Amino acid sequence: MAGNSFGQSFRITTAGESHGPGNVVIIDGVPAGIPLTEEDLLADLNRRKPGQSKIVTQRKEDDHPEILAGVFEGRTTGTSIAILIRNQDQRSKDYSNIKDLYRPGHADYTFDAKYGFRDYRGGGRSSARETNVRVAAGVVAKKLIAQEFGGQVVGYVSQVGDIKANIADPASVTLDQVEKLPDGSANVVRCPDPDIAAEMIRLIEKVRKEGDSIGGAAEIVATGVPAGLGEPVFDKVKADFAKALFSLPAVLGVEYGIGFGCVTLRGSENNDIFTTSVDAEKEGGIQTKSNKHGGMLGGITSGMPIILRAAVKPTSSLPIEQPTVNRQGEPATIQTRGRHDPCLLPRFIPMAEAMIAIVLADHWLRWKGQRSDQ
Amino acid sequence: MAGNSFGQSFRITTAGESHGPGNVVIIDGVPAGIPLTEEDLLADLNRRKPGQSKIVTQRKEDDHPEILAGVFEGRTTGTSIAILIRNQDQRSKDYSNIKDLYRPGHADYTFDAKYGFRDYRGGGRSSARETNVRVAAGVVAKKLIAQEFGGQVVGYVSQVGDIKANIADPASVTLDQVEKLPDGSANVVRCPDPDIAAEMIRLIEKVRKEGDSIGGAAEIVATGVPAGLGEPVFDKVKADFAKALFSLPAVLGVEYGIGFGCVTLRGSENNDIFTTSVDAEKEGGIQTKSNKHGGMLGGITSGMPIILRAAVKPTSSLPIEQPTVNRQGEPATIQTRGRHDPCLLPRFIPMAEAMIAIVLADHWLRWKGQRSDQ
Amino acid sequence: MAGNSFGQSFRITTAGESHGPGNVVIIDGVPAGIPLTEEDLLADLNRRKPGQSKIVTQRKEDDHPEILAGVFEGRTTGTSIAILIRNQDQRSKDYSNIKDLYRPGHADYTFDAKYGFRDYRGGGRSSARETNVRVAAGVVAKKLIAQEFGGQVVGYVSQVGDIKANIADPASVTLDQVEKLPDGSANVVRCPDPDIAAEMIRLIEKVRKEGDSIGGAAEIVATGVPAGLGEPVFDKVKADFAKALFSLPAVLGVEYGIGFGCVTLRGSENNDIFTTSVDAEKEGGIQTKSNKHGGMLGGITSGMPIILRAAVKPTSSLPIEQPTVNRQGEPATIQTRGRHDPCLLPRFIPMAEAMIAIVLADHWLRWKGQRSDQ
Amino acid sequence: MAGNSFGQSFRITTAGESHGPGNVVIIDGVPAGIPLTEEDLLADLNRRKPGQSKIVTQRKEDDHPEILAGVFEGRTTGTSIAILIRNQDQRSKDYSNIKDLYRPGHADYTFDAKYGFRDYRGGGRSSARETNVRVAAGVVAKKLIAQEFGGQVVGYVSQVGDIKANIADPASVTLDQVEKLPDGSANVVRCPDPDIAAEMIRLIEKVRKEGDSIGGAAEIVATGVPAGLGEPVFDKVKADFAKALFSLPAVLGVEYGIGFGCVTLRGSENNDIFTTSVDAEKEGGIQTKSNKHGGMLGGITSGMPIILRAAVKPTSSLPIEQPTVNRQGEPATIQTRGRHDPCLLPRFIPMAEAMIAIVLADHWLRWKGQRSDQ
Repeated sequence: MAGNSFGQSFRITTAGESHGPGNVVIIDGVPAGIPLTEEDLLADLNRRKPGQSKIVTQRKEDDHPEILAGVFEGRTTGTSIAILIRNQDQRSKDYSNIKDLYRPGHADYTFDAKYGFRDYRGGGRSSARETNVRVAAGVVAKKLIAQEFGGQVVGYVSQVGDIKANIADPASVTLDQVEKLPDGSANVVRCPDPDIAAEMIRLIEKVRKEGDSIGGAAEIVATGVPAGLGEPVFDKVKADFAKALFSLPAVLGVEYGIGFGCVTLRGSENNDIFTTSVDAEKEGGIQTKSNKHGGMLGGITSGMPIILRAAVKPTSSLPIEQPTVNRQGEPATIQTRGRHDPCLLPRFIPMAEAMIAIVLADHWLRWKGQRSDQ
Repeated sequence: MAGNSFGQSFRITTAGESHGPGNVVIIDGVPAGIPLTEEDLLADLNRRKPGQSKIVTQRKEDDHPEILAGVFEGRTTGTSIAILIRNQDQRSKDYSNIKDLYRPGHADYTFDAKYGFRDYRGGGRSSARETNVRVAAGVVAKKLIAQEFGGQVVGYVSQVGDIKANIADPASVTLDQVEKLPDGSANVVRCPDPDIAAEMIRLIEKVRKEGDSIGGAAEIVATGVPAGLGEPVFDKVKADFAKALFSLPAVLGVEYGIGFGCVTLRGSENNDIFTTSVDAEKEGGIQTKSNKHGGMLGGITSGMPIILRAAVKPTSSLPIEQPTVNRQGEPATIQTRGRHDPCLLPRFIPMAEAMIAIVLADHWLRWKGQRSDQ
Repeated sequence: MAGNSFGQSFRITTAGESHGPGNVVIIDGVPAGIPLTEEDLLADLNRRKPGQSKIVTQRKEDDHPEILAGVFEGRTTGTSIAILIRNQDQRSKDYSNIKDLYRPGHADYTFDAKYGFRDYRGGGRSSARETNVRVAAGVVAKKLIAQEFGGQVVGYVSQVGDIKANIADPASVTLDQVEKLPDGSANVVRCPDPDIAAEMIRLIEKVRKEGDSIGGAAEIVATGVPAGLGEPVFDKVKADFAKALFSLPAVLGVEYGIGFGCVTLRGSENNDIFTTSVDAEKEGGIQTKSNKHGGMLGGITSGMPIILRAAVKPTSSLPIEQPTVNRQGEPATIQTRGRHDPCLLPRFIPMAEAMIAIVLADHWLRWKGQRSDQ
Repeated sequence: MAGNSFGQSFRITTAGESHGPGNVVIIDGVPAGIPLTEEDLLADLNRRKPGQSKIVTQRKEDDHPEILAGVFEGRTTGTSIAILIRNQDQRSKDYSNIKDLYRPGHADYTFDAKYGFRDYRGGGRSSARETNVRVAAGVVAKKLIAQEFGGQVVGYVSQVGDIKANIADPASVTLDQVEKLPDGSANVVRCPDPDIAAEMIRLIEKVRKEGDSIGGAAEIVATGVPAGLGEPVFDKVKADFAKALFSLPAVLGVEYGIGFGCVTLRGSENNDIFTTSVDAEKEGGIQTKSNKHGGMLGGITSGMPIILRAAVKPTSSLPIEQPTVNRQGEPATIQTRGRHDPCLLPRFIPMAEAMIAIVLADHWLRWKGQRSDQ
């Protein structure tokens, strides 16, 4: 059944495979008048693209987005926006080695079980390549939430293997800290704790040399979000954020605020106490002293920063040989010859930011549509 | 905007508040011919209801479901099913103490921010009372998946505070073990490890006496699920499971399979190796030697048991006094006089099972609808 | 698949059969703060109910709506509203005569083809009884559009058999003219042309005495609707109005503005010429000199009155004997012993008004949600 | 709000304007394994394209579809299909003459009212150009229904101005009769009654020479459709067919079966009598002697041919001068200098067929998804 759309009022619908002609997204519901150019899309696309640093896959896949519809004279028209990103390399590469083999950790077997056959070239529809148009749509969502309520979404790598960053205040991390080191050079691992970032890079390089990969965790923080977004029952924002993050490849866990840490807490420890803000600029002024609730109560935003965390598994494709079976169930071995990401986290950040921004844009528009004018 | 529906092909839509006339669910998309009576609904409703044991809230709220539509001569008709559960206690109890106060950890403040006012009686729409009709709908989903593919969903409490159960094989836990102790008495905490269950109960009782509450974790396991359910991009089953669980009150984290444990693993450790089943009864026979992938690869079921875990926060309502503010932002204190659950986990189990069964029923029907007959 | 919902932002979901316990509607997306009581629902329900006059079915089925959820202290809360209307007569009447017969013009055969069996009592889910909760939801929609933009929906009977009303200006017809004759007595046929109304009644009585039924047409007019509602491609308001009307039983045709009359016109005759309103109160002031476009251009409202027309077939149930077949395909005869509407039109009016109001409420909320605040 | 999608299980989502880079459709829910090439799409695209004959617009706009996703080795993969049709002529033509004018009968004014500004080039999103990707999607739907149940959709022009075709049996009209005259030449007007077709062409040419345009009617017939498709309440197939046709530009009326003719009939005349088919090949064998119900009873297909009729208004763009107003409401005149269709009907046929085929594909997949396997 139709399962390639996400969102209600701000809705994206995508198509595309790893080695087909390209990936396309239709973004529906964007208000008229938002400035938008193809150039705008590049910033985040370049954060996602392969080959951007020595610790990610060395494939070269520049993403050149083309806006096909929905923008006129540099502004959104209010009608549906379409963005196409062509795949650059569609050569009839020899994929015969994986055509009949089930790569461990990949969707090869489950696709065959579902559809009876599959586009086996580079993962087909289940390749992470499909996320490029999500990132493009995320740029539109980021522009929308910035313009409408000053909202901002910043993600960063908080852990790689056993190495954890020390982030005193997630809500104060800036995009600049995520992208650049204090010396101005690129922060290739996207961890805003510079010393830890260096350690993470060393670990990722070590793992890569061993032909292996390593997992990690990311934090995504949304600030400037007004209280009142989200629906009280099924469409809680926490539920839509979780769906958004779990819809990304390799995510095995999601939590917000104190997250799994709540399991061992007592209510008297876990409850965040309401207080009146001394910040005269904040309307109403009610906030909480701590933020174990991660900015959401009863599935509705509280006005405090939204803090989410995702666990990302180590890349399944490995240069070292792994045992598996073929379509007939016969034993075989497999070895991924291509270049792979030894750690998915650095490129995961813009994908996660995009999905969180899309959820916020969606719930903002939903909220506007239900407000009474009276 | 309309946000009170869940699912696509098997879709539930609900309404109802804690102290209104009742809660109602419309279940849409159920195939014709499934045997269904009001009695069928009671088993799980009784597992969810308050007052069922000494370690849950002592409120008395028997749930008497009435099937209003969609069943004829004991079988579903294929048209929409409506189930009503009236609230028994709608007395004009004095809620003036919370009318203008924001209870810590609750949705009082966020409701006011969203809607401008709220039904303050017992939490209104954001009370966990709304989950009773979800549990009723879950019974229908359980019947559907059992009949159509032999699927089964069993949940249990895996942790309360620091006390963890030792469950060697989650997929072998039976409903009977969850509900009964070896001596045949009720397993009130719903942990299938009897010794640990006793410890958990002691902790919950201790916490209750102190006027406090405690968090915990639950595991939900689905077995008998065929490979091939789920959509490759946004509607991955893992994403829909996560949304389902996060749509429940008090859930702060969700993971599946190895979950957050993947963060510190290498790819060579994390990949589950494919093998050919020796089980002659299993069609095709391909499975994995281990199940760190929790039964889902690329967002599609693999035929292995589905293993999910949720973190549930300690109850926010506490008999002990807590500081807070009122609607005007002025300091105040609050104390929940009513009876409360010192630990939400025992009653959370049937809610979580219901939501997971609903996702499975939905994706099963979606899959049937996209299968080619040719 | 789930097919019992209508609308996007203002969405209704229904369940219920003719002879089950009752019909229920969940209305989702209604803004908070709209005054609503059960009494409010009665006005239109009484216009729809059987037995209201000598020219409709003489069955007695008072509709007593119960608001189950979504209203607190007399106002909508912003969360989902549920309304239940119980069926009064569920006696185990002997329906054996139609259990195995296919009534001409009814859905008996098609239900069996679709579901394999059916609730044969009084048409089950395909009985017009299900429309009572649509009418209740329509009252909520009418209140919403009146409050938010002063919108109003009025329907009337424009033709019965060959007898046509002469309505100089559809947009000036009032609810009062539809419901009352100049002498203050009830206008039972709901045609605002009093002389023609008398003729229509005579025809309907004649047809009834002959054991037959007669078709007719209705016009539904919406005034006060601002320009700009509707979506340019699939969700044109004309398309949603048409779906709304065709979703009602017995509707075989729908047109708007000049409708089928456009077939023989030239463009120079059919185009409505824009002009500047002399009405100083109308913002912008642009309108058209004529209204062959029925208030919609490109699927978007133009600010001119919306004029729709529906063809309603003669009641299929007849007291006279008709030939048919049974489930086995064997020849049989059938005769509807019960009381039937000799003409469906008088009771069709409130149903049609409700559906049109629901579409307007939906598109109004959708429009609000896409407006930029900037 | 998101309004650029159509269908539930077979869902199309589109974007594109008349003079932007191109139009794109994403088709979601198509089962895997259906043969599909770009060539397949051309047959119907060529029936829709401008410049195909002397009685349609003389613009040259060949449609070259590119399949961007969802097809692998010539077969659909089960994942979303994307098709792009680039606009060939995007030259910065001088549109200043209509930039500030409201063309009568067009959506210029309503777009400004809705969005605040518009892509004024050739109608932008409200140009009929967007229908080219609907026609492409319709080809996929036609292949699906042909493969799965032998369904076929054929449309034809039944009336132009006062000239009506005599079609004894709509269900027996073939695509060949619609496309070719008995002498093998192209049937440019798409009326399967050859003598009437010649008359229609003469009228259209006359009207064109006068700088005017003329309306008409089309019939769309679906055969081979099994009984049982459609939902009993809101998603009646008649309602979805009506929405589908009204979503096309210029449609002012839709009816099925006897349509508006039912208004003057009695029930005893209007009811179609069930009978047992003598056709041994037809399962069950139950059908009706006549087909005033147009193949649908209670909103569900009856197995009889589906007969729909649409009224299409005369083209609003006229070479002759028409009075209008500009954005400021000041009087002005307008004259469409470009080439226009003097009658929309010949090119309307493939659009209407596509939309009807899409509804049938959707309801077929919906039906499959709700069938019980037991």
